[in-house]
Amino acid sequence: MPVQRIRVPADELRALSSSILTAAGLAEDEAAIVADAFVWANLRGIDSHGVSRLPRYLELFERGEANAHPHIQTTRLRDAAILVEADRAPGPLALSYAMREVIEVARGTGVAWATVKGTVHTGAIGYYTSIAAAEGFAGIGIVAGVPNMAYEGARGAGVATSPLAIALPADKHPDFVLDMATAKIALGKIAQYKARGEQLPLDAAVTADGRPTTDPAEAKIPLPMGGAKGSGMSLAFELLSSGLAANPIVSEFHAGQKRHRQNATLIAVDVSAFLPVDEFKAIVDATIDAVTGLEPAGDAPVLVPGARGAATAEERAETGVPLPPKIWSELTEAAAKFGVEVPEPIAAG
Amino acid sequence: MPVQRIRVPADELRALSSSILTAAGLAEDEAAIVADAFVWANLRGIDSHGVSRLPRYLELFERGEANAHPHIQTTRLRDAAILVEADRAPGPLALSYAMREVIEVARGTGVAWATVKGTVHTGAIGYYTSIAAAEGFAGIGIVAGVPNMAYEGARGAGVATSPLAIALPADKHPDFVLDMATAKIALGKIAQYKARGEQLPLDAAVTADGRPTTDPAEAKIPLPMGGAKGSGMSLAFELLSSGLAANPIVSEFHAGQKRHRQNATLIAVDVSAFLPVDEFKAIVDATIDAVTGLEPAGDAPVLVPGARGAATAEERAETGVPLPPKIWSELTEAAAKFGVEVPEPIAAG
Repeated sequence: MPVQRIRVPADELRALSSSILTAAGLAEDEAAIVADAFVWANLRGIDSHGVSRLPRYLELFERGEANAHPHIQTTRLRDAAILVEADRAPGPLALSYAMREVIEVARGTGVAWATVKGTVHTGAIGYYTSIAAAEGFAGIGIVAGVPNMAYEGARGAGVATSPLAIALPADKHPDFVLDMATAKIALGKIAQYKARGEQLPLDAAVTADGRPTTDPAEAKIPLPMGGAKGSGMSLAFELLSSGLAANPIVSEFHAGQKRHRQNATLIAVDVSAFLPVDEFKAIVDATIDAVTGLEPAGDAPVLVPGARGAATAEERAETGVPLPPKIWSELTEAAAKFGVEVPEPIAAG
Repeated sequence: MPVQRIRVPADELRALSSSILTAAGLAEDEAAIVADAFVWANLRGIDSHGVSRLPRYLELFERGEANAHPHIQTTRLRDAAILVEADRAPGPLALSYAMREVIEVARGTGVAWATVKGTVHTGAIGYYTSIAAAEGFAGIGIVAGVPNMAYEGARGAGVATSPLAIALPADKHPDFVLDMATAKIALGKIAQYKARGEQLPLDAAVTADGRPTTDPAEAKIPLPMGGAKGSGMSLAFELLSSGLAANPIVSEFHAGQKRHRQNATLIAVDVSAFLPVDEFKAIVDATIDAVTGLEPAGDAPVLVPGARGAATAEERAETGVPLPPKIWSELTEAAAKFGVEVPEPIAAG
């Protein structure tokens, strides 16, 4: 049975998401931020962090796991170090706020570091670092969360698939945006293999009890990218983010405290402290030209991080965001529940 | 033919290296720093960055590629951002100096960032970040260099095997020290496979013209760890380090400028700005306990980054640093050339 997809213009999807979140209790400006983070991910093809999350967020609010009325507090610990206490705000809210704060601090000090304590579901971390790049800053982000990935040499879920994102401003090219998990395969990708009825690559994931498998229905725990390297990075991100937040997740998880929560670290670097931003952008552009100009090893063109997302965003800005019927039903049901008007989608093959 | 190894007590190896470097023209205190970085690597089992590099450094000095009399200059660009111009100093000198500078800045600002411009051969980057951990700081280091690794999807050497290191202070356990290249396999490891007459793992490296190979004699270019993730990290490290230093390496290399040089980024975080250092160390210890307490997937114990190096260092501090005869010959020849007295090694099987 072919999957019937529909398409929704990005503006309308943003407005719809924002209205639902406002109706669910978020302040209007905060709902707009969360909606923008969702639709940014959808535009760039990171659909696992797009509006498909909205119904999950509503559940998190209902269950009290996420806070729809958070009091996010920033403490300037030292000139270049801030602590942002997220008060269980959803990630898009807490991390957008924290990134804007740390950028403002870095305007003075050149470089600044934010430790973000106690968010709930981080979302697409590339979104926050891209805020920095758009301002002519380098943005770096790492996240710590509840174990859902194997630790090299150990059985079961030892650490989290904690991502790293690095965004840098370019001029001629789209901004450089590296946004990668420390796992070989994302949990969302495993679900996509399952939906398509395809087998997983070898050595990408294991069963709940640690057996290697290529069956996506059985695969529950992704393996770390590069073995000890990926799980070592994840552990370092936990210690840097959760350690400095005094809110350890991995050690408490293994002691029986399984409650969902995350911490994060955001770093902003004011490029203009080092060299004129235009000169930096020219170096980024020239480096991207050098790399994309390398002889391809196969038939596919050589890409740099962020290029595919930018191209997808350009295309989807024209044609609308494609959504599977299941996601669209969930959104329209949520809208109906809160009496929010639903836009007419564009039918698509 | 069994390889006959000898062992040299760490103190004597440090003194020998320091004396040779001083005789070769380095200032006495600077020679001691370089020697300490070499022997640190040897003690921890990172022999590819140990005293085997000393004869190479002497060549770099002779050829004028490295500067034995560098004027390393620090500019405080903003409160938390410094630029360290290395003046072609060898990495151990420039990066030890830069890490100490950035730690002092971070004592005031909580967090500080050093961009290090124009070093020659970085050495074991874990050494510099470990300086931070020993002071109760978090230390982060990344390096950019001349392309010697494949870029995902491209033929030939596109980017460098640029490493990432993160060191964090512990109390009960040895300090956490992640020190990893972005390549699947180090060039030094390929040489070790060749020396042992063993085949490489599949998909670890390619020939000079990009053919997959498991023959270590043919393998010239390591592949990136995790495909696009490893090469994306390497490219991000180039842009962050070389871009902010206004000293691009990758773009100039592909434009024909192949001269050896490196840039680096060091970040120091004063843990005490966030929480008492003892509390942070307790979180690190508890997290290491949780991870090493996971059920092993096989027969090997579960290890955290830095544990094996610390254990090897403890053992070698007792028994001496094992050296292959070839390295020992090179060292004694260099000593003879400069009239430096050579200690009596301990014979070892």
